[in-house]
Amino acid sequence: MSNWKGENLQLSIFGQSHGPSIGMTLTGVPAGYSINMDALQAFLNRRAPGNDPYSTPRKEQDKPEFQSGLLDGQTCGVPLCAVIHNTNARSADYANLWECPRPGHADYTAQIKYGKSHDIAGGGHFSGRLTAPICVAGGMCIQWLNEIGIQITGHISAIGGVKDIPYCSDGVNPNVTFPNSRFPVYDQNSSEQMRERIACAKADGDSVGGIIECIVTGLPTGIGGPLFEGLEGRLSQVLFGIPAVKGVEFGSGFDAAAMLGSQNNDEFIMDNGKVKTLSNNAGGLLGGITNGMPLTFRVAIKPTPSIAKAQKTVNLRTMENATIEVKGRHDPCIVPRAVPVVEAAAAIVLFDAILPKS
Amino acid sequence: MSNWKGENLQLSIFGQSHGPSIGMTLTGVPAGYSINMDALQAFLNRRAPGNDPYSTPRKEQDKPEFQSGLLDGQTCGVPLCAVIHNTNARSADYANLWECPRPGHADYTAQIKYGKSHDIAGGGHFSGRLTAPICVAGGMCIQWLNEIGIQITGHISAIGGVKDIPYCSDGVNPNVTFPNSRFPVYDQNSSEQMRERIACAKADGDSVGGIIECIVTGLPTGIGGPLFEGLEGRLSQVLFGIPAVKGVEFGSGFDAAAMLGSQNNDEFIMDNGKVKTLSNNAGGLLGGITNGMPLTFRVAIKPTPSIAKAQKTVNLRTMENATIEVKGRHDPCIVPRAVPVVEAAAAIVLFDAILPKS
Amino acid sequence: MSNWKGENLQLSIFGQSHGPSIGMTLTGVPAGYSINMDALQAFLNRRAPGNDPYSTPRKEQDKPEFQSGLLDGQTCGVPLCAVIHNTNARSADYANLWECPRPGHADYTAQIKYGKSHDIAGGGHFSGRLTAPICVAGGMCIQWLNEIGIQITGHISAIGGVKDIPYCSDGVNPNVTFPNSRFPVYDQNSSEQMRERIACAKADGDSVGGIIECIVTGLPTGIGGPLFEGLEGRLSQVLFGIPAVKGVEFGSGFDAAAMLGSQNNDEFIMDNGKVKTLSNNAGGLLGGITNGMPLTFRVAIKPTPSIAKAQKTVNLRTMENATIEVKGRHDPCIVPRAVPVVEAAAAIVLFDAILPKS
Amino acid sequence: MSNWKGENLQLSIFGQSHGPSIGMTLTGVPAGYSINMDALQAFLNRRAPGNDPYSTPRKEQDKPEFQSGLLDGQTCGVPLCAVIHNTNARSADYANLWECPRPGHADYTAQIKYGKSHDIAGGGHFSGRLTAPICVAGGMCIQWLNEIGIQITGHISAIGGVKDIPYCSDGVNPNVTFPNSRFPVYDQNSSEQMRERIACAKADGDSVGGIIECIVTGLPTGIGGPLFEGLEGRLSQVLFGIPAVKGVEFGSGFDAAAMLGSQNNDEFIMDNGKVKTLSNNAGGLLGGITNGMPLTFRVAIKPTPSIAKAQKTVNLRTMENATIEVKGRHDPCIVPRAVPVVEAAAAIVLFDAILPKS
Repeated sequence: MSNWKGENLQLSIFGQSHGPSIGMTLTGVPAGYSINMDALQAFLNRRAPGNDPYSTPRKEQDKPEFQSGLLDGQTCGVPLCAVIHNTNARSADYANLWECPRPGHADYTAQIKYGKSHDIAGGGHFSGRLTAPICVAGGMCIQWLNEIGIQITGHISAIGGVKDIPYCSDGVNPNVTFPNSRFPVYDQNSSEQMRERIACAKADGDSVGGIIECIVTGLPTGIGGPLFEGLEGRLSQVLFGIPAVKGVEFGSGFDAAAMLGSQNNDEFIMDNGKVKTLSNNAGGLLGGITNGMPLTFRVAIKPTPSIAKAQKTVNLRTMENATIEVKGRHDPCIVPRAVPVVEAAAAIVLFDAILPKS
Repeated sequence: MSNWKGENLQLSIFGQSHGPSIGMTLTGVPAGYSINMDALQAFLNRRAPGNDPYSTPRKEQDKPEFQSGLLDGQTCGVPLCAVIHNTNARSADYANLWECPRPGHADYTAQIKYGKSHDIAGGGHFSGRLTAPICVAGGMCIQWLNEIGIQITGHISAIGGVKDIPYCSDGVNPNVTFPNSRFPVYDQNSSEQMRERIACAKADGDSVGGIIECIVTGLPTGIGGPLFEGLEGRLSQVLFGIPAVKGVEFGSGFDAAAMLGSQNNDEFIMDNGKVKTLSNNAGGLLGGITNGMPLTFRVAIKPTPSIAKAQKTVNLRTMENATIEVKGRHDPCIVPRAVPVVEAAAAIVLFDAILPKS
Repeated sequence: MSNWKGENLQLSIFGQSHGPSIGMTLTGVPAGYSINMDALQAFLNRRAPGNDPYSTPRKEQDKPEFQSGLLDGQTCGVPLCAVIHNTNARSADYANLWECPRPGHADYTAQIKYGKSHDIAGGGHFSGRLTAPICVAGGMCIQWLNEIGIQITGHISAIGGVKDIPYCSDGVNPNVTFPNSRFPVYDQNSSEQMRERIACAKADGDSVGGIIECIVTGLPTGIGGPLFEGLEGRLSQVLFGIPAVKGVEFGSGFDAAAMLGSQNNDEFIMDNGKVKTLSNNAGGLLGGITNGMPLTFRVAIKPTPSIAKAQKTVNLRTMENATIEVKGRHDPCIVPRAVPVVEAAAAIVLFDAILPKS
Repeated sequence: MSNWKGENLQLSIFGQSHGPSIGMTLTGVPAGYSINMDALQAFLNRRAPGNDPYSTPRKEQDKPEFQSGLLDGQTCGVPLCAVIHNTNARSADYANLWECPRPGHADYTAQIKYGKSHDIAGGGHFSGRLTAPICVAGGMCIQWLNEIGIQITGHISAIGGVKDIPYCSDGVNPNVTFPNSRFPVYDQNSSEQMRERIACAKADGDSVGGIIECIVTGLPTGIGGPLFEGLEGRLSQVLFGIPAVKGVEFGSGFDAAAMLGSQNNDEFIMDNGKVKTLSNNAGGLLGGITNGMPLTFRVAIKPTPSIAKAQKTVNLRTMENATIEVKGRHDPCIVPRAVPVVEAAAAIVLFDAILPKS
């Protein structure tokens, strides 16, 4: 089910790309939390398709309308429900998908699972558009985490092989944030090369993938737990819920596999009366529990599967080989728009982990 | 909590490294499934410490005693409970951990979370020993998956930077399995280099990490679902529950981030009346749902944090810097023993996903 | 939380009595189930306040608008979300409740739980109006149960002490149903006395309670399970979620407490090759599992707490004793309108119990 | 599944009546809670069969052995697992149950659900013996509730139609408790008549049922919530998990159905600066939330289905009518032994509801 259940919170994402509306219900938020609607809209705008050369020309307002859970801009303890109306549906674009599934998309597997009842238009419930309600839920959680000093910062770590500086290499960027940036990169030079790579792919009718790195500062120590209670598993369950995510790693991640214990272990030191570690290969987590260092993780995003280039596919009616050129409005690179989604996903899990029982 | 809840199954792992016993309860398995106890023991022996130069000399029988859920070697619909008695406890080794936490271990974070009530001996509930009950649960699931033609094969993909051939590079190894092997590697040459790397680290009082690749064949199409119902998230939640796992990726994983859409997309073809894909960068999953190709994923294992080398730590009583040399019996590389644990974790999730409601 | 989680289904009820809308999300319904919208509306109309002398004059359309989960009137496997817009809100009626809580209502306890963030207007999330979305979810489940021959029939068993004939006393009424009746009673004479009792209470500015008996026929054997998996517990959890329910009993229920084992045991007999029982004191359940006899249960509904008579209360601002006469539009007896709610609640649990995993 | 999931706690009951052991795992209890093992054993002894004329002669020690979760008699944050070894199994008594199911038992329905894999001996997982691990879990919760001033007191409200004085009729018995009593009744005269009723049934080869009333004092206000979060539903779900329970009511319960609103409403008054109610027909719950008055509920227990009298049954092999006289060792009345089980069940739910998130 498109439901997630944390320790306190439950999130249900509903809607189809071309249905009346998409939205979310979030239950378990205690009464008394304020929402800054302008800040929430600004956050949603980072995910919304824009005038950038690298995003789809489909325009949607992505304006959430709260049906429940608020009183005078504050949570009242009742499940939060927000809907975003779909205004710009063009189902005709998708009529052919029943016969010829698009490579890299869920067209084929969704048909197998749901049969002819599946709503295939625009990918239905599998559409990247369903990340908008994740951002509604996560955008609120980000605000509530900020109030207690917890900051979540995502940046584009790589696009199409072009890499940004990693977080905290030589301490250059420990506190850099990117307020409302639609293309957050530490290094200006990398940023330009990434944009070129996207432009190049677009010109070719192709697409590129990338990596998003996310840093969470201000987390208290002691959050998480052993085995299936570890924050790594809880975060990854939601992060992999974002379409196109194919890998998740924490701290030194896959690089740790090639290191010696003496290299990868983070030695403890006292720093002004506080316990810290000299390095942060653990990504802020020991035994699944926060150790007071920044929580760091990286998420691999595959290239947008919708490309204009001719691709081999099959015709499921005739059961013969076929060729497809994906029409419609698509992003040559979804990585920039995915940054707030990754932040939102992490915020939902972390707010749940920190929240006292309501 | 050390509980995992799937769609049908619930798994609870209990016990401390030096308590009376460790074990598991697994509920939701329908009545009528047989267990081959000899095969289960053989599976558990792959995880148990052995006479290998790369595993700890601590010897435990790891013999599960079923308390509940079986009648004449068959499940009877009642929760399965199995305990493994702890026979070789040496708590004295760990007395100092309260003061000086070991780098890379949960000693520090567990104290923060549980306070003085924490059972620190041998890592308590955070010990790698707790993976034995995961193997009890997963070893049964592997048997039940095998019965319906589903095969889970893990191999050591890398140790300390030495790499094995990847799965299915040029179709060399599509059906290789490693029955009861304690060091499963495709390439004999790589295998020897890996062993040398371990020996070298051991001689140095150090340790090495590695990567485990896992291939699942025979899965039906249509298993999984959108968003949080996707198999990636469900598998990773349990995989990250294995201590020392720092990264999980599916199919081309992090490599996908540097690819073009036209490279990463798996084109569909008809193959003897069946829909297949020409490549398998998706790792068998589209939209979180199995597409009939082998499910492939890789798991990064950090180097064993227990090393004999002197490391900086802090004394939590005096709040001063200190030095630690970790005594006790430890593996210079846990990757080989972790292979069955990764297989077990995957089997639990996949059996749950395939199981009709009991 | 206002969430219920079954084996397959999850139901979230959202909204406040005087907010923009109330509604529900129901996840876990497989693709391919049809909904007869006219029949659903007819079912909802049984709960809606009407022109009857015994229901509130507040008029609401209770017309669900589906946002998600449907394609051409059929479920498509995506979470179902339906909202019912609130059109007839009169918040001014409720301004005083902060100071002087109404006896028998949640005004006092909700303030304690939620503080000043609580939405008190019309009872907020505690309003009986929130049973409308329960009826949306349950009304669909009733249709799907009917398709496989399962029939749920509630009738008014008692109002204000006036009793109807019990189900199947002397086999008079085994198959009586009450299609779209707003006052379902077996015995016409009892029905008239009940209406008089209501009229009498209304004239007095008072209210009356009652009992609803519910019979479910056509259930397959073998549904349910031991201990917390028993249908009694699963049904009662949802039935007690209906405001005003104060008791639930199955089969002979509380009467069983005064019986001998030889009286209460239902003896087995063969009936045309089928196993049946001579009596049905078990209410169709043995060991929490259906035995093929009709499932029967009874639900006690307390008298509407909103009465015009003067009652003692306290002023929470001054912390002094006070008097209250509850204004506003209220039902002198909610039992008739509660019948479809009880049917809906049971249908949700039973459809979940019968549903194969999606 | 025989699992219960609360807000923080999860309870899994495992074991078969004649298997190696029965037991429970309870997860979610924070570190640092002490257990008085002697008091726990004394509590378990109230449930254990004794030398009383009204309980089965089968003797079991019911001595829990904790495998996990404790360190020096204190919880350490790890799942609690305790087993009770089965020592007095006599499977031969039950060989015939496959063919001729006992009326009032789960023999028939369990066969349908689990088929030939079902462990029928002694009722298997359906045995009343499985209430022992419920008492292990609940006995600990009772201790932890007591520490914060919450007292749970059950008494026998009726047996075979003989009634005890109800709680607090005329304020006679507001604070009476029954430490370690195996037959807790307020009124000595009623107590004797109840014992006579049991002796009479026993002499006849018959059995009697009864009602258990339970009072919880000291609960803070504000515990519980609306709809499915209400304490009524959460308590009843676990109470109905006790075999033989056929009804649950809160406060005035089914009697409320015959009352006027003006009679059933509990008027608020100020009492020494505290808000109280003049009566307690609500049983301490308004809107599913505690209001500071004692929580009161009553549970209907059916007569023991195992009786020596000849009863009609069917032979499931020949599919013909048959007769059965239930042999073996059985209680003519399980109500006295069920009192601690009801207290335990309530304690588990209430401790969960009160517990801050671990």
